[in-house]
Amino acid sequence: MDSIDTARALFRAAPFIVDLGIEPTSMGDGRCETGLVVQPRMLQHTGQVHAGVITTLADHTAGAAAQSVLPPGAVAITAELKISLMRPGKGERLVCSAVVLKPGRTLVFAEAEVHAIDGGVRSLVAKLSATLAVVQAK
Amino acid sequence: MDSIDTARALFRAAPFIVDLGIEPTSMGDGRCETGLVVQPRMLQHTGQVHAGVITTLADHTAGAAAQSVLPPGAVAITAELKISLMRPGKGERLVCSAVVLKPGRTLVFAEAEVHAIDGGVRSLVAKLSATLAVVQAK
Amino acid sequence: MDSIDTARALFRAAPFIVDLGIEPTSMGDGRCETGLVVQPRMLQHTGQVHAGVITTLADHTAGAAAQSVLPPGAVAITAELKISLMRPGKGERLVCSAVVLKPGRTLVFAEAEVHAIDGGVRSLVAKLSATLAVVQAK
Amino acid sequence: MDSIDTARALFRAAPFIVDLGIEPTSMGDGRCETGLVVQPRMLQHTGQVHAGVITTLADHTAGAAAQSVLPPGAVAITAELKISLMRPGKGERLVCSAVVLKPGRTLVFAEAEVHAIDGGVRSLVAKLSATLAVVQAK
Repeated sequence: MDSIDTARALFRAAPFIVDLGIEPTSMGDGRCETGLVVQPRMLQHTGQVHAGVITTLADHTAGAAAQSVLPPGAVAITAELKISLMRPGKGERLVCSAVVLKPGRTLVFAEAEVHAIDGGVRSLVAKLSATLAVVQAK
Repeated sequence: MDSIDTARALFRAAPFIVDLGIEPTSMGDGRCETGLVVQPRMLQHTGQVHAGVITTLADHTAGAAAQSVLPPGAVAITAELKISLMRPGKGERLVCSAVVLKPGRTLVFAEAEVHAIDGGVRSLVAKLSATLAVVQAK
Repeated sequence: MDSIDTARALFRAAPFIVDLGIEPTSMGDGRCETGLVVQPRMLQHTGQVHAGVITTLADHTAGAAAQSVLPPGAVAITAELKISLMRPGKGERLVCSAVVLKPGRTLVFAEAEVHAIDGGVRSLVAKLSATLAVVQAK
Repeated sequence: MDSIDTARALFRAAPFIVDLGIEPTSMGDGRCETGLVVQPRMLQHTGQVHAGVITTLADHTAGAAAQSVLPPGAVAITAELKISLMRPGKGERLVCSAVVLKPGRTLVFAEAEVHAIDGGVRSLVAKLSATLAVVQAK
């Protein structure tokens, strides 16, 4: 398990993640958990959280889960992702849990679930499946 | 072809789209074109545009293309999307072009391409494939 | 839980499933399990099971899981699927386990895992994520 | 452009492709075109061509398009695919056209369209988006 400080430093290095207020709550051993507080600026015209916010949360969390299984100097970059948007994202908070399905030297397969917390009730909003390419950091 | 004013009003109704500065340049007949100016807060820790920004642009543009083929009172909601991130998003501007592949009464299939403009050079960054559900507005 | 006889009748009504020898081992309550015996004609030029065989198994099993939550007269039709092919399909047998993630009146979200059994050793070969449309049988 | 004889030899080396009768009509420069004659054993219980047949056709054609841009000794293996099944596959023949969107040293992005020919009328049935890993042949 990476220290939570390492995880926080990684997340704080990504400006868009800081901009959305996405924070890790744990990271290591092919897993990562994160959360964000829903803000009015994150909504769709229908009043629910924009799919782009949900996807950003899921993608970055899956990326951190993948990063946690890589050797030093290697970086996981999303090559493609698919996300199923199963329920409207409504509530005060989103949380995400990601796991590596298959580590590899050049490709890592990961997935992530996003839940909304609405008045204390938790519901599955989205599920992501991603392929990440392993590249050497410059 | 919808008037560009109608398109702008639709985009301005979505707070996250306003937040990212995504603007339509045309919309109608199953097509939509959009763009955004890349800002430092939109980056990944690698210095390229975050996949979440690229996906938001592609998803919303595909949604607007789908919306343009629906009858009044119907709303297109993304049920799922897949995006291939083919090149790093680098440059001063991203532009997106979306098209409906298959309209329908309950499902619309659409796709979108995102290009980066970097020093005036245009390159294909990402391609999205999405399924949208048609629901009645409340 | 549907009776296994009902499941078998459903699978036997699909000629391509009979052709590949895909058999259900359980079906009901949003779940389905199936298997097939790998035959030489199912291989890719690399000697592993063709992605098309793996996808057929995963898609049909996910479809049966979705079918099991529908009311009489409704049919689940795959609108789109994504499959991650994580390891080469090698072995004497493939087994698949599918589950509905989110039932619905017009859309059902399901996923499926395919494992290969090679000399008695079981390994995760592929994972599918699908969206199914609910249509009325004619 | 590879000779059509080279393409045919490649397709005939894959037993499942021979089994389904998938034949290339052209291959080279990041493109491939193929076709198959629909047989009763390829159907779904609904009477349309099984999604697994359509996916096999699209995947293998995309793989051949990817293969055509690789240096000798390298092999393109599908890492993941997504396919949108837009219309029922009905007719006497399916044809497929694939193109490489982005070649690469370790990953190739490709897509493919499948059309059905029904009584001489051609309609778009499915569209595939795939990521292929480049591996060295053994």
